[in-house]
Amino acid sequence: MGKHGIILFGHGARDPRWAEPFERLASRLRTMRGDQPVALAFLELMSPDLPAAVASLAGDGCDAVTVVPVFFGQGGHVRRDLPEVIEKCREANPGVVIHCATAVGEDEAVLEAVAGYCLRQVGTAS
Amino acid sequence: MGKHGIILFGHGARDPRWAEPFERLASRLRTMRGDQPVALAFLELMSPDLPAAVASLAGDGCDAVTVVPVFFGQGGHVRRDLPEVIEKCREANPGVVIHCATAVGEDEAVLEAVAGYCLRQVGTAS
Repeated sequence: MGKHGIILFGHGARDPRWAEPFERLASRLRTMRGDQPVALAFLELMSPDLPAAVASLAGDGCDAVTVVPVFFGQGGHVRRDLPEVIEKCREANPGVVIHCATAVGEDEAVLEAVAGYCLRQVGTAS
Repeated sequence: MGKHGIILFGHGARDPRWAEPFERLASRLRTMRGDQPVALAFLELMSPDLPAAVASLAGDGCDAVTVVPVFFGQGGHVRRDLPEVIEKCREANPGVVIHCATAVGEDEAVLEAVAGYCLRQVGTAS
């Protein structure tokens, strides 16, 4: 049985520091997942893009990949651009089952953590 | 003593559904904060913008406002654009103390929640 990779998919930005939380998130997941791969991929301005990340995981022995959009809102990037890129990745990697998750901002536990962060900011700013 | 408002500051997008997690987050915080105001504001493509949101909270009796950037990464929008807008808000509202938090993606508890979400996605996709 092959490996099941996770790809954290973000928008990308010109400032390399923008990617720092994504890198911390990937490190955290790698610690939790043992030898199951975790990779980053970006829509634009940063590399690798999603096709390169999927190809890399396939080469690393993954026969399943779950793409998690690390976005709060689901607008055109998640609803339109991402499905198009994923379809290309499926065509290019017929031996890999590619699943795409809902954006992380739709998860109640994530929103609860963000709300907690907001309340702590008010506490320290008072 | 005046109120202490929270402004959830997001990028904005063309698709109105993009703002749904921000609205859910605001609702959650309003429930937790009683009569302390919680507002949304956007950098572009959606309204209100930050100056309008700050003016609205000032009119609602806030003498302190904490702006929380609801972004994962801190690139040009958070590091360059946001401080410029906040400086204008301070000049326009000298009676309001405006504090700006670090982006939510820098918070470890938020990243932990996102990591948990990612692991659940792999579990259900296997």
